[in-house]
Amino acid sequence: MPRVSQDQLDARRHEILAAARGCFARYGYEGATVRRLEDATGLSRGAIFHHFRDKDSLFLAVAEDDAAAMVETVTRNGLVQVMRDLLDRAGASAGDGDTAGWLGTQLEVSRRLRTDPAFAKRWAERSNAIATATRERLQRQRDAGVLRDDVPVEVLTQFLELAYDGMVLHLATGRPPGELSRVLDLVEEAVRRA
Amino acid sequence: MPRVSQDQLDARRHEILAAARGCFARYGYEGATVRRLEDATGLSRGAIFHHFRDKDSLFLAVAEDDAAAMVETVTRNGLVQVMRDLLDRAGASAGDGDTAGWLGTQLEVSRRLRTDPAFAKRWAERSNAIATATRERLQRQRDAGVLRDDVPVEVLTQFLELAYDGMVLHLATGRPPGELSRVLDLVEEAVRRA
Repeated sequence: MPRVSQDQLDARRHEILAAARGCFARYGYEGATVRRLEDATGLSRGAIFHHFRDKDSLFLAVAEDDAAAMVETVTRNGLVQVMRDLLDRAGASAGDGDTAGWLGTQLEVSRRLRTDPAFAKRWAERSNAIATATRERLQRQRDAGVLRDDVPVEVLTQFLELAYDGMVLHLATGRPPGELSRVLDLVEEAVRRA
Repeated sequence: MPRVSQDQLDARRHEILAAARGCFARYGYEGATVRRLEDATGLSRGAIFHHFRDKDSLFLAVAEDDAAAMVETVTRNGLVQVMRDLLDRAGASAGDGDTAGWLGTQLEVSRRLRTDPAFAKRWAERSNAIATATRERLQRQRDAGVLRDDVPVEVLTQFLELAYDGMVLHLATGRPPGELSRVLDLVEEAVRRA
């Protein structure tokens, strides 16, 4: 039996996540059957479920992978920049499987939060991580004096999250970007010191 | 055979829509089986599909009913007020089946827009009606001098729609209202003349 290095395992895991993301986005959680996951990954179910216990674990891993990447970007560049990047990618190519997959996963998470209490419970922790990263970055901006100071940081945090949720729903349902870039200018202006 | 008046037909149709709305919201489009629709309405499939050709037509009727009510409210009170009403109802009672149903339908529409091109095409017309009502009301406010005049009405329209979409996603996924009421103050302030 050939030895498989940790790097190879990680690479394989990453490949499965990328392919599964597209599959969940395209077909939804229920529609992404094991057969379709096999087609998307080019692997057998045995190989897939060697890395992820079951379909639910695979879906959670995709969603958590996305959330972790987002926390990183929020901390570095802020939630408005996350929205701008998202918009750029959505506008640049409707056929960008990665962005479409990412958006689809976001919406699929939303659907499962509504219909699946067990999933909602597992998800709450990750969801808080994004809010926390946003809040902490706004607090740093408040301390630096570039944020408006007549509204609590918590309200500004939830204002940005509202805009983010709106953008996810807008883009994930395939609506054209329209004037969203200028809309984001308004969003940014609304939290800044006048 | 007893004669059935148009009023009775309308009332029955309305009853079916209300029950079906809750059923679609709770189980999603696929999960709302004909059996569950029978349970929810207390009617046989024969009686239900006497009023609506098939499940797809019933779902579209629910969604169009919601959209028509929304166009009316937007024209009268504006999209921010629609959001405030929504928030009040969501906060007042987590067990409010009507609001939960309405939110669920919104999200289910979003999911089908993404996964069902035929549905997306049928839906586009209604969706435009809401945007049009919002745009026209903002234009009247611009003419009345209460709207900021350094940003095109179209951008302000899409800014309000972004906030609305964000609120739908937030509430429909069962997240607590948090500071959304104060967030809506920010949204309103951002479109007003300073």
